[in-house]
Amino acid sequence: MNNTIETILNHRSIRSFTDELLTAEEIDTLVKSAQAASTSSYVQAYSIIGVTDKEKKRKLAALAGNQPYVENNGHLFVFCADLYRHKKLAEEKGENITELLENTEMFMVSVIDAALAAQNVSVAAESMGLGICYIGGIRNELDQVTEVLGTPDHVLPLFGLVVGHPAHPSGQKPRLPKQAVYHENTYDTNEEHFRSYMKEYDETISAYYDKRTNGKRVETWSDQILQFMKQKPRTYLNQYVKDKGFQKN
Amino acid sequence: MNNTIETILNHRSIRSFTDELLTAEEIDTLVKSAQAASTSSYVQAYSIIGVTDKEKKRKLAALAGNQPYVENNGHLFVFCADLYRHKKLAEEKGENITELLENTEMFMVSVIDAALAAQNVSVAAESMGLGICYIGGIRNELDQVTEVLGTPDHVLPLFGLVVGHPAHPSGQKPRLPKQAVYHENTYDTNEEHFRSYMKEYDETISAYYDKRTNGKRVETWSDQILQFMKQKPRTYLNQYVKDKGFQKN
Repeated sequence: MNNTIETILNHRSIRSFTDELLTAEEIDTLVKSAQAASTSSYVQAYSIIGVTDKEKKRKLAALAGNQPYVENNGHLFVFCADLYRHKKLAEEKGENITELLENTEMFMVSVIDAALAAQNVSVAAESMGLGICYIGGIRNELDQVTEVLGTPDHVLPLFGLVVGHPAHPSGQKPRLPKQAVYHENTYDTNEEHFRSYMKEYDETISAYYDKRTNGKRVETWSDQILQFMKQKPRTYLNQYVKDKGFQKN
Repeated sequence: MNNTIETILNHRSIRSFTDELLTAEEIDTLVKSAQAASTSSYVQAYSIIGVTDKEKKRKLAALAGNQPYVENNGHLFVFCADLYRHKKLAEEKGENITELLENTEMFMVSVIDAALAAQNVSVAAESMGLGICYIGGIRNELDQVTEVLGTPDHVLPLFGLVVGHPAHPSGQKPRLPKQAVYHENTYDTNEEHFRSYMKEYDETISAYYDKRTNGKRVETWSDQILQFMKQKPRTYLNQYVKDKGFQKN
């Protein structure tokens, strides 16, 4: 196994960082790594906002559900789906492509582009000995997040990514069994298979929490997922995403 | 610069592979790498279909716009947004979370989860000396792709990823200037900045194609993007995605 795969397999989210900020050179390497990712048909439909302003970080941490590591970290990146540049360059050429930009295909392209870039940053950061954590919590109140970051229409903040020097080690949470995630040639909808691997996995996760919390938590993955979906429905997003110029048609 | 960052910065898409198939062990390492990626609130809302069946590969290559490397490669992965498992486990517990599953938030979560997993596979594969290329072309005709792969509702194939032993080297396409993609604290909407970096970048890209094609192509990035958006609007996706149980509300 080479170093890169070792880094990838060793991933765990870090939610507590020392005060040490990333250097300008480290940030530059991470942005270059982001930009090196594949991009659908070369559209490069994403942007990254690096947030260093303390007041903005404080606000974003509050909006993301009072997560202190959104404020205290080595660097905070916010990844955005971005079709603003494409709209501007069409305008410069006297063309109107707004309807095309606002379709579901371009929404998918821009979200995927942003995520590929972000994962390059994550792997690059971890290869440098830094820790990372994605911050989906910025989707709690995107109207206020876009105000803090000054993003125009056709730019949609998707998630944050905090990077920094880990203050405490953290554990690695067991993933679904391979057979749940990886299918060969045809998607497996066999109910027996499903019940069998879910039972096994729920037992694994329950035992994992039991051990990690000295018996305070024993929930299964199923319990956790159902709870999450009910708690964070973020139903405003359907309209909000359209209001920002994405997937209207 | 460490090996991992070198691998990431050295990325280029490979569209021509030798006949050598990936070994079972290599595929296993790549799937493990996918699973090690971050996942929003632990939902693991994606699946991967590994396609080895020659007839299926032939069909997918045709559907993706007759790209021969979709058929001829070391391995073909198809990454899917997947909320099927979540729906099933809710049903097993007598709960109905279909409306929650079908919201825009969960669409974004599942697309991002799939993309993060895929980029781990890309970096891992490249670290092993393999080449990769993403295949957005499977979104040309998703109704037929879902039939080939047997994906049920609440599973949406997003893109393919071909991996294999490169048959020919390929060049690296210049990315947008850093200032276009990376903003500090506030999104930069300054028109002068925009015109200045777009002009510079369009010249870079035009010179790049000129050199690569001995003067046969001299288009700018702007030209290419406008052309792409008009050619591949995939406007059916808005309804199709809903029909498959995603982002209805």
